Amino acid sequence: MSALAVSIRIAVDCMGGDHGIPVTVPSALSFLARTSDASLLLVGRGAEIERALPGALKGVDVVHADEVVEMHDPPATALRSKRASSMRLAINLIKEGRADVVVSAGNTGALMAISRFVLKTLDGIDRPAIAGPIPNQLGRVTTMLDLGANVDCTPEHLLQFAILGSALVAAVEEKEHPTVGLLNIGEELIKGNDIVKQAAELLRQSPLNFQGNVEGNDIYKATTDVVVCDGFVGNVALKTSEGVAQMLGGFLREEFKRDAVSRLMAVAAYPVLNRFRRRVDPRRYNGASLLGLRGLVLKSHGSADAVAFECAMQRGYEEARHRLIERTVAAMQPFVAQLEQLHGARPEATEQGA
Amino acid sequence: MSALAVSIRIAVDCMGGDHGIPVTVPSALSFLARTSDASLLLVGRGAEIERALPGALKGVDVVHADEVVEMHDPPATALRSKRASSMRLAINLIKEGRADVVVSAGNTGALMAISRFVLKTLDGIDRPAIAGPIPNQLGRVTTMLDLGANVDCTPEHLLQFAILGSALVAAVEEKEHPTVGLLNIGEELIKGNDIVKQAAELLRQSPLNFQGNVEGNDIYKATTDVVVCDGFVGNVALKTSEGVAQMLGGFLREEFKRDAVSRLMAVAAYPVLNRFRRRVDPRRYNGASLLGLRGLVLKSHGSADAVAFECAMQRGYEEARHRLIERTVAAMQPFVAQLEQLHGARPEATEQGA
Repeated sequence: MSALAVSIRIAVDCMGGDHGIPVTVPSALSFLARTSDASLLLVGRGAEIERALPGALKGVDVVHADEVVEMHDPPATALRSKRASSMRLAINLIKEGRADVVVSAGNTGALMAISRFVLKTLDGIDRPAIAGPIPNQLGRVTTMLDLGANVDCTPEHLLQFAILGSALVAAVEEKEHPTVGLLNIGEELIKGNDIVKQAAELLRQSPLNFQGNVEGNDIYKATTDVVVCDGFVGNVALKTSEGVAQMLGGFLREEFKRDAVSRLMAVAAYPVLNRFRRRVDPRRYNGASLLGLRGLVLKSHGSADAVAFECAMQRGYEEARHRLIERTVAAMQPFVAQLEQLHGARPEATEQGA
Repeated sequence: MSALAVSIRIAVDCMGGDHGIPVTVPSALSFLARTSDASLLLVGRGAEIERALPGALKGVDVVHADEVVEMHDPPATALRSKRASSMRLAINLIKEGRADVVVSAGNTGALMAISRFVLKTLDGIDRPAIAGPIPNQLGRVTTMLDLGANVDCTPEHLLQFAILGSALVAAVEEKEHPTVGLLNIGEELIKGNDIVKQAAELLRQSPLNFQGNVEGNDIYKATTDVVVCDGFVGNVALKTSEGVAQMLGGFLREEFKRDAVSRLMAVAAYPVLNRFRRRVDPRRYNGASLLGLRGLVLKSHGSADAVAFECAMQRGYEEARHRLIERTVAAMQPFVAQLEQLHGARPEATEQGA
């Protein structure tokens, strides 16, 4: 590749997550090795990062950060008292135009708070949301949001999430009119709460490809490309899913270890079981997007290993390569009237105030 | 058994569910055949039920009902316009003291509305809740409520659900102080919404064995015996779990059918795979309890087959045998002061008004 080719510059918060540098740096280098049009800004304790590098590498710069946001730091503390943290400096690189996307396995609350403070939200977006790829039975992913950033949402917030999720799928999966579902509960019961009912009304009035209510199992049935819900419900659904998958995986392992004959069967069926395991490997679905910001921020699971972290980097790279921010801004144009009407006379300046 | 032995009288709404009599009647008879101290009141279209019976049977009475609550009937319609439905008559049998428990695979909303209208709630309980047994990785069940009856809950409602769930586990599983968890979202995020925060405070002040917040995956980890949440979140968690389990089961089947060698492996590993399948068979966990009423009502999944319906009958039988209502009333005594304080000066008569 020529040096003039447009390169996707990825800022990596090397200190984030349960493992930090021993995972993030090798993972980032592995990603770089197979991605010709990417470059890395490795942010964190410079000396430690340098030691983890095999020497000076083309396309790799180290940005020193004195401080580290810990997993247990309250978001407000991380925001106010750790202005020299690797997380903060990595996000600053986006703001300064030196990076196209930041990837961090750090504290979600802090990442959201700092991103929002430094980058600000897009016009028309009140609150950023966390969107994650959920594996579905078609072997693809359903994009679900919010996964935990916003616990009390208005109908208008849910509409905004739908716009953001739809723009993400349109850009990265190159689908022209992604289908959108609103997470609700069963037909036979009282159909959802008032906020969800009102959100459905807003979605019906919007230019989105809204398919109506979906239920929890529809996420996995791939009924719609995007599933919208508030962050409390989304986070519970996500964690519940993890719990079920872990339990079932554990039961399957136990049955194949129960006795000598079963263990023999496990050896014999290894290729099949291994295909199954690879297919449902949660590491492949690592990487949630903080949407609605004026910059691309990818959140990796805190416990991610190098394989999982690399998936999050890949996702961030794809968003940057597909110019997600510009496309989201463009995608929001048809909603301007609807959002402005909902916002009432609120001056735009307030929203973007420093 | 002597005719004088106390028998558990089970009213079966034979018309409910996707299948009606062809499932409910054989299932009920199978249950009766292995349960010496039970008797059945089969409620529904008399002639059709009689035809499904192998003749007159000891311990089996048929109660004719002209009408049927359909799966799509709005609860209000079922309640007001179908007073001769099998569902209504079955619930009436509880009220009249002719049955100890009712089991129905019918329309959940209608079952809840009619049960509440006919049976009324227990003193101190504002709203009944739906509690379901969720299989956990210990091979037992976690009792989760509410699973969809109440979409907008106050902290006080969540406290009531906790009391009801705890009483259920104490009675049926014979645990003296069941542990209770409040479903919330991750440590690192803004910890839950205001209602959940306030509910946690009420639970901490209560005599319950409250263990604090739990997350979605804790349901399956068996972190607590009881998990409390509002009906919207509970229903989403339940349906999401079903979706994940179906997807994973489907993937496993697909991998074992991928090619001739894989299919051979499936045959060879059949005993192991079959043990796994039996272990995670959702039919074994069929049967949700409508709690907080002055009578025992069990809701079977609408799509239940005879095996699944029999599990719901078994659950209802256990609740009756363990005298769940009396034990719930007794279990509520320590909360009287707390609940009365929360209710303020509201006269009890209002709550029980016909």
